[in-house]
Amino acid sequence: MSQLRYDPIQGRWVIIAADRSRRPRDLQVTASSSGGPLYCPFCPGHESRTPPEILALGRPAGGRRDGPGWRVRVFPNKYPALVVEGELGRHGVGIYDAMHGIGAHEVIVDTDQHVLGLAELPAAQVELLMQAAAERMRDLHRDRRLKYVQFFKNHGAIAGSTLTHPHSQIIATPVIPRLVIAELNQARTHYQRKERCLFCDVLQEELERGERIVCETGRFVAFAPWASRFPFEIMILPRRHGSDYGTVSAEDLADLGACLGEVARRLRAVLLDAPFNLLLHTAPNAEAFGSERGLWKTLLWDYHWHLELLPRLTQVAGFEAGTDFYINPVAPEEAARFLREAEVERP
Amino acid sequence: MSQLRYDPIQGRWVIIAADRSRRPRDLQVTASSSGGPLYCPFCPGHESRTPPEILALGRPAGGRRDGPGWRVRVFPNKYPALVVEGELGRHGVGIYDAMHGIGAHEVIVDTDQHVLGLAELPAAQVELLMQAAAERMRDLHRDRRLKYVQFFKNHGAIAGSTLTHPHSQIIATPVIPRLVIAELNQARTHYQRKERCLFCDVLQEELERGERIVCETGRFVAFAPWASRFPFEIMILPRRHGSDYGTVSAEDLADLGACLGEVARRLRAVLLDAPFNLLLHTAPNAEAFGSERGLWKTLLWDYHWHLELLPRLTQVAGFEAGTDFYINPVAPEEAARFLREAEVERP
Repeated sequence: MSQLRYDPIQGRWVIIAADRSRRPRDLQVTASSSGGPLYCPFCPGHESRTPPEILALGRPAGGRRDGPGWRVRVFPNKYPALVVEGELGRHGVGIYDAMHGIGAHEVIVDTDQHVLGLAELPAAQVELLMQAAAERMRDLHRDRRLKYVQFFKNHGAIAGSTLTHPHSQIIATPVIPRLVIAELNQARTHYQRKERCLFCDVLQEELERGERIVCETGRFVAFAPWASRFPFEIMILPRRHGSDYGTVSAEDLADLGACLGEVARRLRAVLLDAPFNLLLHTAPNAEAFGSERGLWKTLLWDYHWHLELLPRLTQVAGFEAGTDFYINPVAPEEAARFLREAEVERP
Repeated sequence: MSQLRYDPIQGRWVIIAADRSRRPRDLQVTASSSGGPLYCPFCPGHESRTPPEILALGRPAGGRRDGPGWRVRVFPNKYPALVVEGELGRHGVGIYDAMHGIGAHEVIVDTDQHVLGLAELPAAQVELLMQAAAERMRDLHRDRRLKYVQFFKNHGAIAGSTLTHPHSQIIATPVIPRLVIAELNQARTHYQRKERCLFCDVLQEELERGERIVCETGRFVAFAPWASRFPFEIMILPRRHGSDYGTVSAEDLADLGACLGEVARRLRAVLLDAPFNLLLHTAPNAEAFGSERGLWKTLLWDYHWHLELLPRLTQVAGFEAGTDFYINPVAPEEAARFLREAEVERP
């Protein structure tokens, strides 16, 4: 089992997943495995090559579990960073702090089609993927040990993907990650000062200015954030305030499928098949706070869930690693203009 | 000129360096330029291909400025992310905050030898490099607009290097970076609670345990940190408490040259020519706080300067980008054992 260790200097937890270790020289960065559908463990018909499924969407009535016919499929990661079984076992080691690697690590196969990326999927398929993420989040929130559920997607080897069949992941952690705490604090401070949501204010500013908007749907707005860390970074914000992604409605999901698909197509039109990370930011699991859950739900209400899409065109180098200060060579206004003006083919 | 923008959601400043922008498709990650010494702007004899030098160490008496004979040479970056000339011009833009891209961005050429890396340099040459960093830091601290001076090195394309001739960089920023604030806060909280330096406590724990130690010299200890984010991550801590790297003595520098060189050679023995980032963490510039500098010097005294060496074997993917939570597949105890047992040739 892996171990969670607290870094006393940075104030951040790290997962030491040494079970996954190989010889040092095997660690060099490699390209995505490019075996075709015949060898792909995520393709329909190969369900026995993955751990048993947790959820499948779109399989017709009568279809058997772990058989084909699904449109989105979720199962535990075969090489999990964190596992559900066991005790948290919080303990000290000398002056340091540790706990067992308890959590969840799941794979969501986005589609039954091999090699199609987000940009080629119909809106209804993207909707189904985001529905699977919402269902898994609601289910994982029933486990009170899990304080935060992170949904994300790595596209391309540089973005950390090792298999080409489009897939996403969920990692649920027993502590709230530092970056999420930073956003919660910023949102809380803003609300306390202004009695308004920080994200709602950002949304209004972006809609008034217009120059960083990429595209809009009835319920969502996609824009290049004011202080983008990466060239062509995109944020997708729901127009209606809501802190918990698990509470999205069917109408939200249909609209989100259309908005996210459109953003992916515009990025592909401008950047071709550039590597990217997609990630969801949502409120921590209030249920994890037991008898204080009511207070926490109130505190977390200031937050506003959103998606971030981070193309990986530039390297994170020593300056960024030493400071968490990013240098972005493309102004977000320029990036948004390229994306707005892109000619897009829709599937 | 570039612009500093504050991200209200993350609470972090970003440099938008749009002068450096190219067409979107030109941004894809590329390998280090591999032109030989003939084409290298950093090799001796080619000094006219760089901006005029700020500092040169080792040039014999009578040698001319911007001529050959130097052993370490410093000049402004030709494509600076921040520039010294101009006003800070802090201003608001709608709900957002910005300032002009004021600061400093310098290149330190580590050696007059083309293609030699840190691992092949004699201790005296590494000492000279670290002396140049200290001299530049002391000089930049005289500019009260500059709150933090970041010395770093990118080795290899994946680590962000675009030229093969060994070189380091300095970027001085007009705000204290978020990651540095996090470390200052952790150190301050520890000191307030225990009346002891956090880093001195870490050093004592590591020396007592021994299992994460890589190598030691009279004045420095190199070890794999308890909660290493990356496989084979190394921290080099001075045994004697000191918050400001600018105050290192000649004896410190000689010993640091030996220690850092030894770490680089052990890493090369185990990981071959793996990409890495080297970075220095030191206290912010107390002079930047004007009449409050005395108070700040007291507050910053809790800090303990150190070097971090981060091999870049694994990708920073969506989970890390979304949470600042890292998954490390190699336990630091294992990494330290490999490095201790490595057979090393010394130049």
